[in-house]
Amino acid sequence: MNKEDIKKEIITAIKKVKKENPMAPSITNTVTINFVANTQLAAGGSAAMVYLPDEGETVATIANAVYINVGTLFPIYEKTLPRTAKKLQELGKNWVLDPVAVGIGELRGKLLSDFKENRPPIIRGNASEIIALANLWNLLENQEKSKVRGVDSTETVSEAKRAAIAICKYTKGAVSVSGEVDLITDGNYLAYSHGGSKLFSKITGAGCALGGLSAVYACCASPFIAALSACQAFNFSGSNAEKIAKGPASFQTAFLDVLYSATAEEIANNNFDFEKIEN
Amino acid sequence: MNKEDIKKEIITAIKKVKKENPMAPSITNTVTINFVANTQLAAGGSAAMVYLPDEGETVATIANAVYINVGTLFPIYEKTLPRTAKKLQELGKNWVLDPVAVGIGELRGKLLSDFKENRPPIIRGNASEIIALANLWNLLENQEKSKVRGVDSTETVSEAKRAAIAICKYTKGAVSVSGEVDLITDGNYLAYSHGGSKLFSKITGAGCALGGLSAVYACCASPFIAALSACQAFNFSGSNAEKIAKGPASFQTAFLDVLYSATAEEIANNNFDFEKIEN
Amino acid sequence: MNKEDIKKEIITAIKKVKKENPMAPSITNTVTINFVANTQLAAGGSAAMVYLPDEGETVATIANAVYINVGTLFPIYEKTLPRTAKKLQELGKNWVLDPVAVGIGELRGKLLSDFKENRPPIIRGNASEIIALANLWNLLENQEKSKVRGVDSTETVSEAKRAAIAICKYTKGAVSVSGEVDLITDGNYLAYSHGGSKLFSKITGAGCALGGLSAVYACCASPFIAALSACQAFNFSGSNAEKIAKGPASFQTAFLDVLYSATAEEIANNNFDFEKIEN
Repeated sequence: MNKEDIKKEIITAIKKVKKENPMAPSITNTVTINFVANTQLAAGGSAAMVYLPDEGETVATIANAVYINVGTLFPIYEKTLPRTAKKLQELGKNWVLDPVAVGIGELRGKLLSDFKENRPPIIRGNASEIIALANLWNLLENQEKSKVRGVDSTETVSEAKRAAIAICKYTKGAVSVSGEVDLITDGNYLAYSHGGSKLFSKITGAGCALGGLSAVYACCASPFIAALSACQAFNFSGSNAEKIAKGPASFQTAFLDVLYSATAEEIANNNFDFEKIEN
Repeated sequence: MNKEDIKKEIITAIKKVKKENPMAPSITNTVTINFVANTQLAAGGSAAMVYLPDEGETVATIANAVYINVGTLFPIYEKTLPRTAKKLQELGKNWVLDPVAVGIGELRGKLLSDFKENRPPIIRGNASEIIALANLWNLLENQEKSKVRGVDSTETVSEAKRAAIAICKYTKGAVSVSGEVDLITDGNYLAYSHGGSKLFSKITGAGCALGGLSAVYACCASPFIAALSACQAFNFSGSNAEKIAKGPASFQTAFLDVLYSATAEEIANNNFDFEKIEN
Repeated sequence: MNKEDIKKEIITAIKKVKKENPMAPSITNTVTINFVANTQLAAGGSAAMVYLPDEGETVATIANAVYINVGTLFPIYEKTLPRTAKKLQELGKNWVLDPVAVGIGELRGKLLSDFKENRPPIIRGNASEIIALANLWNLLENQEKSKVRGVDSTETVSEAKRAAIAICKYTKGAVSVSGEVDLITDGNYLAYSHGGSKLFSKITGAGCALGGLSAVYACCASPFIAALSACQAFNFSGSNAEKIAKGPASFQTAFLDVLYSATAEEIANNNFDFEKIEN
């Protein structure tokens, strides 16, 4: 597998999404739920959000991929999230876990611990979240101190590389680490997606929207290609949106507009590095 | 009643809303709740959203019309929605039911079934939702297979005409079917509202916002006129917003801006057809 | 303390926020939660929203200031809000109470009554909400009839002056009354912040976003300076946004863009009056 192969797979995934309009339902936080849905729609997918246990199981059954984000937990999630994850795993569906704010609260810790056995096919987070999750799952030989501060990362993407690979070795899926340069890996290959904009950190929900978009592409591609396609789409759209933005709010508007118009080729040709992991 | 009479009634309703700033509270989904409120405000109304049973009863008591959307259900809705609907019915208030994603989950099915006895004065949905609801309520002689897919419709508005009329015959209210051309009926008359934009399907919540706007107009007009006025306002604003939009996000911004500035006459003069239903 | 001293303190607070990027977590309503977060981010702060009791206690422990808004209550708030407020008080943290829609529902009334003993360091509301809260807490010699209508105020800011001062005398904190001209007081001093835009009343959540921004500044300043800085930032950004807005939605976008770019000096120099309260 070389970079040109990857580009072709990205193009195929994105074209398929634009053609088939796949629904990638979410169980996600209330802060950014609208931005997640609008990002999914702008890219050509379809959105549906639920909270209740049997609804989680239903969408896991009818959709090709699901997005689960633990940003704002409701009490019912104690039932909804495990049942949905179990159903997704049973059916072999793709899904994206966004381990937001790992470390805050008892239910969050329990849910994130228990997801270990469900081996989420895609995990997307900032560097601190990925390191914290790898620690929580005891996947690192030496526990690394993670410094999650609410929803913000205090570590760099390269610091999370070892944790991301460790998670992939365990899940057999992909991990997407968001930062100045995004790292995407499936444990065998590493990709770094460049571009984007500093303004992503000045709007709430860029990470969540990226997770939701990963789920859309995961309806039509492997976890690794889906996670990479989403980062490429974000970085292409973000860097172009920044050129016309006057601040964070007009940036968000421009981002969705650019994402909507971006061709599969433009997204695939966004600057990225690709390498095999030497073991 | 002819088309000119209808135009006059639309103008009266819209002017009254702009003058009186009526509050149309909502119990609605978390995905699009902000867009619903901003649409209600842009049109001259006022918004208030609640979740708890006694709060639903309170807003049913103090407001002239209420918007109920079952998009994202919380467990408490098992109590909130029946109690609110009962209070609305007892007080003879106008309210709008948006039967989002009928078919997904047990609570949703039960709530939507039970709403039958409350005879919602306005029901707004896409074609698939309206057909599914008519089936759920056993209002069609021959059950028609509905193909609801999450929040998306897979049927055309004209396919839902029979179901819409059947619902009106039962509720004595109005039904609004959203699609490329919107169908509005009270069982005796049919209106088709033209215009709008394909970009409505590329932002989340256009249907919800239309439902919320219908509730605002229902504070000051009959169910049929309110539902039609809302479609006219949407189609006028959508088609004008599309002209200046660069994509779905700038479309949404332009839509609210145009709606805010649109005069009652401009909205009433948006292209629509009006006919009597021959029995 | 004179007006120039106040300006200097505003400048110091705003610069500190831009430099330190403090996290001001929120327990807030679902309607405007995204706007609250984006406002906090645009000003240089960081956002995190939670619903569960132990999460409320955790963010109260790790953050310098918290925003509590009772707009849309969930059942769990019966536990979350008292436990969070108690923790905040025990730790002497700054926090902002937004008593939205006081008067609607039993839980809301109980929560707002019970907050009296927690003496919220900053209370922000419209005139009707401030008068209603002062009445609820029996802080006015003659009960004044408050006319809260959902989330809208039916009284003027000047009518709420007596109530605002009475609350400050009790809480030893600050009160911020939002209206055409904003009144901010700590019981000893009064400030009136001018500017802003009528379009704030045509978007949902301006008040909530102002409360959330007050919490961000309260991470780095006294309650009075924080509340005043937030009003100044809003009025500066609002009046400049209005100049380029074509309606409420482009106004909201422009508002966040301007807020993001505004310097501490520009915000401090926004027109305001400052006076000592003569007892």
